[in-house]
Amino acid sequence: MDLNLLSKHIKPESSKIVFLVMDGLGGLPRPQDGLTEVEAASTPHLDELAEESICGLQIPVGSGITPGSGPGHLGLFGYDPIRYQVGRGVLAANGIGFALQDDDIAARGNFCTIDDQGIITDRRAGRISTEKNQELCERLRSKVSHSGVELFFETVKEHRLLLVLRGKNLSSDLIDTDPQETGKKPFPAKATSSEATRTAEIVQMIADQIREILKDEHPANMVLFRGFSKKPCWPRMNECFGLKAAAIAGYPMYRGLSKIIGMDILETGASMEEEFSTLEKHWDEYDFFYLHVKKTDSYGEDGNFEEKMRIIEEVDRYLPRLRALNPDVIVVTGDHSTPSTLAFHSWHPVPVMIWSKICRKDSVSSFGERACISGGLGPRLPAVDLMPIALANAHRLDKFGA
Amino acid sequence: MDLNLLSKHIKPESSKIVFLVMDGLGGLPRPQDGLTEVEAASTPHLDELAEESICGLQIPVGSGITPGSGPGHLGLFGYDPIRYQVGRGVLAANGIGFALQDDDIAARGNFCTIDDQGIITDRRAGRISTEKNQELCERLRSKVSHSGVELFFETVKEHRLLLVLRGKNLSSDLIDTDPQETGKKPFPAKATSSEATRTAEIVQMIADQIREILKDEHPANMVLFRGFSKKPCWPRMNECFGLKAAAIAGYPMYRGLSKIIGMDILETGASMEEEFSTLEKHWDEYDFFYLHVKKTDSYGEDGNFEEKMRIIEEVDRYLPRLRALNPDVIVVTGDHSTPSTLAFHSWHPVPVMIWSKICRKDSVSSFGERACISGGLGPRLPAVDLMPIALANAHRLDKFGA
Repeated sequence: MDLNLLSKHIKPESSKIVFLVMDGLGGLPRPQDGLTEVEAASTPHLDELAEESICGLQIPVGSGITPGSGPGHLGLFGYDPIRYQVGRGVLAANGIGFALQDDDIAARGNFCTIDDQGIITDRRAGRISTEKNQELCERLRSKVSHSGVELFFETVKEHRLLLVLRGKNLSSDLIDTDPQETGKKPFPAKATSSEATRTAEIVQMIADQIREILKDEHPANMVLFRGFSKKPCWPRMNECFGLKAAAIAGYPMYRGLSKIIGMDILETGASMEEEFSTLEKHWDEYDFFYLHVKKTDSYGEDGNFEEKMRIIEEVDRYLPRLRALNPDVIVVTGDHSTPSTLAFHSWHPVPVMIWSKICRKDSVSSFGERACISGGLGPRLPAVDLMPIALANAHRLDKFGA
Repeated sequence: MDLNLLSKHIKPESSKIVFLVMDGLGGLPRPQDGLTEVEAASTPHLDELAEESICGLQIPVGSGITPGSGPGHLGLFGYDPIRYQVGRGVLAANGIGFALQDDDIAARGNFCTIDDQGIITDRRAGRISTEKNQELCERLRSKVSHSGVELFFETVKEHRLLLVLRGKNLSSDLIDTDPQETGKKPFPAKATSSEATRTAEIVQMIADQIREILKDEHPANMVLFRGFSKKPCWPRMNECFGLKAAAIAGYPMYRGLSKIIGMDILETGASMEEEFSTLEKHWDEYDFFYLHVKKTDSYGEDGNFEEKMRIIEEVDRYLPRLRALNPDVIVVTGDHSTPSTLAFHSWHPVPVMIWSKICRKDSVSSFGERACISGGLGPRLPAVDLMPIALANAHRLDKFGA
């Protein structure tokens, strides 16, 4: 059901919903015993919750599709990730809290290393320090210019930066200058629509200036851009779901995404202790909480089965603090799978459980990939269906038709 | 996800995918022991594969919809069979290996019987013999003509024939002249778009000539036409999936369909020995193989449970030869069900398994309708989802979004 139709059936309630999202939760069996990270983890509290929940596996974007973190999360929050696509540049801006104006063009940048021929030898300039990045952005800010366009160079983290162009008649219909591999030169700026011809010229002039300004730097002697994009104008969670929503996420990118769909971003550290404390502190102020655990994904991407498993066990130990708050609905899942054995995001369906007093629990008694196959949500629930089910469990959806 | 969007996420790989399709695979329980053909068959190799695979049941077209062979196969290959419909005329042409040119108009014809008033008394002219059909087509070929249009009358089988019009500015926007019931006169040829006005006039003149030429024949004294259509111009498998694909199918209709979506048609006999030898012979040349086993369907349509079961057992004995080739992904399924107890195609979901080293196997340990219900693909997977899942398992799909 699309957001517009759904929004017509929202009724006011004071119930509270919590989405506990372990990034990259789903996994694959390890060779020695055929267990995945979730299955191998000792998770008495998650298993107890599964026993009282309706369980299943969800598909974040589509069959066989490996989601990036943006689309993976949008689906969880009820936004069809194929319809609602965010550019990388906008994600970067949101991640650092840069207030984009409606007509701004944002691009994600990478400081990189090029050789004498201009060929990229390191797309991340040896992951320079954030301090070095700040110093270089400061220099670019003071030296790069183009008449009629206001430019912003903002440090994100390590080699990552944000470029924003503010001016009249700019378009984001541009290809990336980042070829996404070494051994090539940066691509020249190029428009993909006639409206963007002038913007492409401006971006090329900026790139040329950057190369000149950084020519004596090492290793960060050039910048690559990708994901030219404008701020999306989407329905917000309070409009479509009637929810006063808050995001508890230590990492910029997840905060940025949550902001786009209208969540309040709560001040928090990135540790689990800090995140759960933030949840407790603001419990009375909101009726929807998204709590994001990043490290399941980070360790998955490192190929570290043991540590990913331990993070899941740590979440398990914090679960009683969440339950003690007495939420009406708890959804536990991930935004995609990141099997340690692949060390990368994957398309595999993600375990999910929805707990409420009226969820109609199934016979699943442990939380894991194989156990959830036989759950009441089925083995292939589209992620966008989670939000309406959560709302229903929270008594927040009215009858459809007479 | 639609083919266009999917095609944007294809990445080049050298992995190999095999679709082993047993036509009409799904069945219904026989009375004596409640087992279906697949369940009753002794299939140690298929069961072993199931144990290492993710299993389920797939729906070729839609819930309750009994697929013809064309739509049943299109779904398997990732083409939504409701969106991608082939005209009956084109299917008839493909079925007999008639090489349609891009602008040809093809129609499926029936020799029929009409009475003195021109009213249809038998839509199939008593199912005349194929020899009689050939004699009549020969006569139509030599006597029917229209200036500026080349005409082809080709025997299909029994009362069935193919009409092809070749010329400039022809359109297939025509209603059927076949009213699909007796007691009515053939419908006059009629255009459904202004572009087809002239083509409708030509078809009507052809119909008038046929009536005159066959007036002393009995029972085949007229021809009815339906399914006016042009060769479809669909995305080809190399465009949308980046696959160099080959079809191994002994029967013309399956070769024709495979050709439409861009597969190379490998020279092969129709026996299983010949088909598997063809697979081995061409193994290094392609990265996608479709191997079609026809007789499961033929025996199903004959109501011959035992023989359909034996064909499945024969496939089982050939499976080790397929596995010895070391494919990256194996998909085993059918294009629809043909239960011997019904002796006809049916809507019942079709057992399916997808094997790869990273498929995330479930707990299903035998290949059959009931066992597959509890598989990780679920009991009602849309067939169009199989191709993206197979591509993902073959590492051929890139991440969606950042």
